[in-house]
Amino acid sequence: MRMHSPNLLATLQLNPEVRHAIGLMAGTSMDGVDAALVRITGVGDTIQVETLATHHSPYTPQERAGLMRLIREGTVADLCAWDAYLGERFAQTAQELLHHARPPRVDFVGSHGQTVWHAPHTRVLDTPVANTLQIGQPDIIAARLGIPVVADFRTRDMAHGGQGAPLVPIVDWLLLRSDTEHRVALNLGGMANLTLLPAASTPYQILAFDTGPANALIDLAAFHATQGGQTYDRDGALAERGQVHTELLEWLMRHPYLQLPPPKSTGREVFGEPLLEEIRAREPKLSWLDIIATLTEFTAASIADALQRWILPQYPVTRLIISGGGVHNLSLLRRLQQRLPTIALHSCAEFGVDPDFKEAIAFAVLADRFLQGLPATYPNTTGTRTPTLAGKLALP
Amino acid sequence: MRMHSPNLLATLQLNPEVRHAIGLMAGTSMDGVDAALVRITGVGDTIQVETLATHHSPYTPQERAGLMRLIREGTVADLCAWDAYLGERFAQTAQELLHHARPPRVDFVGSHGQTVWHAPHTRVLDTPVANTLQIGQPDIIAARLGIPVVADFRTRDMAHGGQGAPLVPIVDWLLLRSDTEHRVALNLGGMANLTLLPAASTPYQILAFDTGPANALIDLAAFHATQGGQTYDRDGALAERGQVHTELLEWLMRHPYLQLPPPKSTGREVFGEPLLEEIRAREPKLSWLDIIATLTEFTAASIADALQRWILPQYPVTRLIISGGGVHNLSLLRRLQQRLPTIALHSCAEFGVDPDFKEAIAFAVLADRFLQGLPATYPNTTGTRTPTLAGKLALP
Repeated sequence: MRMHSPNLLATLQLNPEVRHAIGLMAGTSMDGVDAALVRITGVGDTIQVETLATHHSPYTPQERAGLMRLIREGTVADLCAWDAYLGERFAQTAQELLHHARPPRVDFVGSHGQTVWHAPHTRVLDTPVANTLQIGQPDIIAARLGIPVVADFRTRDMAHGGQGAPLVPIVDWLLLRSDTEHRVALNLGGMANLTLLPAASTPYQILAFDTGPANALIDLAAFHATQGGQTYDRDGALAERGQVHTELLEWLMRHPYLQLPPPKSTGREVFGEPLLEEIRAREPKLSWLDIIATLTEFTAASIADALQRWILPQYPVTRLIISGGGVHNLSLLRRLQQRLPTIALHSCAEFGVDPDFKEAIAFAVLADRFLQGLPATYPNTTGTRTPTLAGKLALP
Repeated sequence: MRMHSPNLLATLQLNPEVRHAIGLMAGTSMDGVDAALVRITGVGDTIQVETLATHHSPYTPQERAGLMRLIREGTVADLCAWDAYLGERFAQTAQELLHHARPPRVDFVGSHGQTVWHAPHTRVLDTPVANTLQIGQPDIIAARLGIPVVADFRTRDMAHGGQGAPLVPIVDWLLLRSDTEHRVALNLGGMANLTLLPAASTPYQILAFDTGPANALIDLAAFHATQGGQTYDRDGALAERGQVHTELLEWLMRHPYLQLPPPKSTGREVFGEPLLEEIRAREPKLSWLDIIATLTEFTAASIADALQRWILPQYPVTRLIISGGGVHNLSLLRRLQQRLPTIALHSCAEFGVDPDFKEAIAFAVLADRFLQGLPATYPNTTGTRTPTLAGKLALP
């Protein structure tokens, strides 16, 4: 049995013409909480989303250390305490955002929470138990802000056989698709995630996967190159001062992950510290600037390679719409443009989406979609058996 | 700001005249999952609740051992895996119940989950973080049964300054109050919980507290007396074979907990194994049967004492309506009646509530109350600053 998903907009006395929502997100990089205030116009598959304000509240060193310790060696007691703590912390970040923005009203919050565990493949007593946990107690956020909160976006997808990720492709589709041209949304975070949006597509035609690293390796190398002075290569300036090492690049491009057909996903355990150490061992005399140049070229080349292998033969994409921190790396963008001469590169800012707050914006949109009773994940995005709602409703 | 709580009954296309719901509960004694199918008629403060079927699914020894280990030394990974496992386990218990009962339809589930942590007083980085956790992933229950699930009943109360417990008093008030007489609902579980329901009261007048132990100490002594053959004193037969030791009883009645004015709550850490060891050290020659008789008298005396001290002077109660395993202990009931000669003792079965499944029934009723947008906790029951909804909504 499967009930018809209810439309909660009317229940919550929300206006189908226009809603104001806050999206809250804390990434796996553990740098802090992102908040975005958006205005959503219309309903269904033709909503318009406008970002009214954004705010980043960085974790203090104590918070970051506490969360790292929680993930590494936390007890049940620690986890419950941090769930409540981050509930207060997320609420406070939303209040700071509102202090800047002062909108006429805010209708609801979509809160992703802080991921502390994600295990699509586990067993307990011989029972498969796909599971994931994002903390930041939604009841606390709802109580402090006095409005409903949609949270826990990944568990239902897993309950229906999905991987619980990625969730953003449906938002890419809602905000960035075209009726007339094939587009790709590219997020340059720690990893590079790509969403194909075929022309005039339905959500069933979305294809999403990780092409490989985006900033993860470059950030690490920039930290070493500047003796800790920079945590990333600002504007790609370090990469521009180095030389690409052709042999190293060719070796990196033979990485087995790049040969796998999509859908696929990867992380820092594959493209992170251990790989950088391997690179250093392989080319001990290479300067940090040359390593950064080579890694930046590798990121561009692996993205271009994925497009050329898996996308362009079937979908002659005309536009690549870029979000994430990597959009500010001019060296990376230049290299990507060189390798994809027929494709126009855009920051998603040109499409009304702040590239640094795309995920926070996405969770406001996903919360709205939940309240409309519309699915967020599809068999082709997460592997769910059936289009599936994402979220749970908490009330103030 | 505080929004008007929405009525979700209409949203979910539920009939205000009659709903069918399943309540799921797993107690801190970790004996298994209780399920009750109820028919709820009407809305607001005048609902009628009829129990159509009940089912108890005991934990296997492996499940019990796994859960005990989780609480004692579980990691974040273990917790997440068990949350998913118990989601499947609760869903399976509901399906077994339905296999027996075959109702025309079931509209929703109220699932308390298995408590693995409850800490109303904790701090993280100097921030007070009241927190509690019941596991058994509601999204999994909703997915398997294909109906909405209300769960996570304790977190919002804590977000509003409450202790997150007790939650059952509002259900006592809904099902057992009288317009014309003062009543007390008494639950004889591990501890004895009492709810005063003044005549023609509003929920603001409910008073609820733990009087002390009910079965916790007697169960332990019965286990010893029978060398592990019995986990409780069936029908109170062991108590009837022993003699009350007057000095020991008087010493027990001087326990400091009994002197505290309500509201107050206690647990096995106070009235459990350590106290039994103290009793054995105090009276090493006393037989197990005499100990059981004395503990049974102590339970009756401490309940009667609480009524006489804190309730009867202001509210001349006429009826005591009893639920929980202790209702089957005839020795306990006899002693209680002797000490309260002016009060009529009833099993809650006489009021249409199965005494062995009262909590499972209660969580079906609490889920319904959440869907109606009505509060479950009040300043006088949990200490919440304001009447507070209990629950989060998960959808299939």
